[in-house]
Amino acid sequence: MKIAILTIFPEMFESVLSSSILGRAMEEGLVEITPWDIRPYSDRKHKNTDDYPFGGGAGMVMLAQPIVDAVRDLRQKGYDGPCIYMSPRGRTFCQKKVEQLAQLDNMIILCGHYEGVDQRALDLVVDEEISLGDFVLTGGELAAMVICDAVARYVPGVLGSAGSTAEESFTNGLLEYPQYTRPREYEGMEVPPVLLSGDHAKINQWRREQALDVTLRLRPDLFATAPMTEKERNGAMERSKGEA
Amino acid sequence: MKIAILTIFPEMFESVLSSSILGRAMEEGLVEITPWDIRPYSDRKHKNTDDYPFGGGAGMVMLAQPIVDAVRDLRQKGYDGPCIYMSPRGRTFCQKKVEQLAQLDNMIILCGHYEGVDQRALDLVVDEEISLGDFVLTGGELAAMVICDAVARYVPGVLGSAGSTAEESFTNGLLEYPQYTRPREYEGMEVPPVLLSGDHAKINQWRREQALDVTLRLRPDLFATAPMTEKERNGAMERSKGEA
Repeated sequence: MKIAILTIFPEMFESVLSSSILGRAMEEGLVEITPWDIRPYSDRKHKNTDDYPFGGGAGMVMLAQPIVDAVRDLRQKGYDGPCIYMSPRGRTFCQKKVEQLAQLDNMIILCGHYEGVDQRALDLVVDEEISLGDFVLTGGELAAMVICDAVARYVPGVLGSAGSTAEESFTNGLLEYPQYTRPREYEGMEVPPVLLSGDHAKINQWRREQALDVTLRLRPDLFATAPMTEKERNGAMERSKGEA
Repeated sequence: MKIAILTIFPEMFESVLSSSILGRAMEEGLVEITPWDIRPYSDRKHKNTDDYPFGGGAGMVMLAQPIVDAVRDLRQKGYDGPCIYMSPRGRTFCQKKVEQLAQLDNMIILCGHYEGVDQRALDLVVDEEISLGDFVLTGGELAAMVICDAVARYVPGVLGSAGSTAEESFTNGLLEYPQYTRPREYEGMEVPPVLLSGDHAKINQWRREQALDVTLRLRPDLFATAPMTEKERNGAMERSKGEA
């Protein structure tokens, strides 16, 4: 999995790409994420990458030319996957999109800044716009990092023993059940006895019920569409009534 | 605005907090974002911060004790704002939440990792859970950076002349109109003539219509709730029929 990130702040990625799970995945060559500086592509004398918006208004707009030339250069370097622009206009990022992107060999992510990117660059080289959510950031860099992190988790070997993508939030359409680790008692709060029982069928049932209950309570929208048996659905509804 | 971020990977924040707009805001003392290492708070001999989950399963669970002690230490150091846990279980982050958090003097953000955090730590010290969206990350660090970035934009002085929060996506409930900058013609594509007209009333009307049209096309859910006149709503609907 190779990801090129087009940015005017390539240095912003350094510590993220060298720490934690993403850092280890990079070191082990499981993923290759390369921040790619847009600035050297500018044909302006001072290598500017932005200019005032036509029609006036606050802020600056990123020039089309350096972006278009950078993407074309990456195309020549073998990046044949989609060019994704991080933008509030895009489709909202979700786990289904993560799984879809994880199938790709490579992709290009374009990070906007200031008041956006000249629309002609988007028309010429961008294949898809993705939004991280209904909020505004100072630039697309953090959004690009989030995409890389979410997608890298699916690359075989990246998670190692630290976790798994098989049993986690959203994969089964539900939120996760509560977790407990040692000690058994902490500040007078005990671990639910079933988790100490050693009875795996019972533990699985408890966890499933907890996941159903927390999803019904916090995310009724997910609960409504998550795959479950009629009995599970009714059970969760009954329990929630008991609480109320 | 002071934000303390509780994490087992404090080094991951370095380049993000020293680059771009967030870096400048930190340098100028407009915001103070401090990654706060959880590890030194561990009372275990080897300063572990995680252990196996009770009841079995893949991955590790973060210990309650170091987290609880770290939060209590921050409370003593004057952090009296909410302790927010980044979690898929939380309410989905949105611009309204950004504006709300931007009112605060300070807050604590707790970054989870692996399979999560011992539920008792959440019960004891976490005031609110926030989810970045319906996707899973290797940890809460990138989500915390996104929160910081989105919130910092509202701190007076942070955006400077680089942009403004007054006229942007979501603030008026709509997506942004397309932007153009020099040159007037690029690869045969011309800037819309109205933007060169110098007629500000016309430009504003064109931009408003473009924002209405792009929102109707890409985010009918936002269009449905955005404040607009009856005439504007009908106009956008008419234009969209014309396109179809």
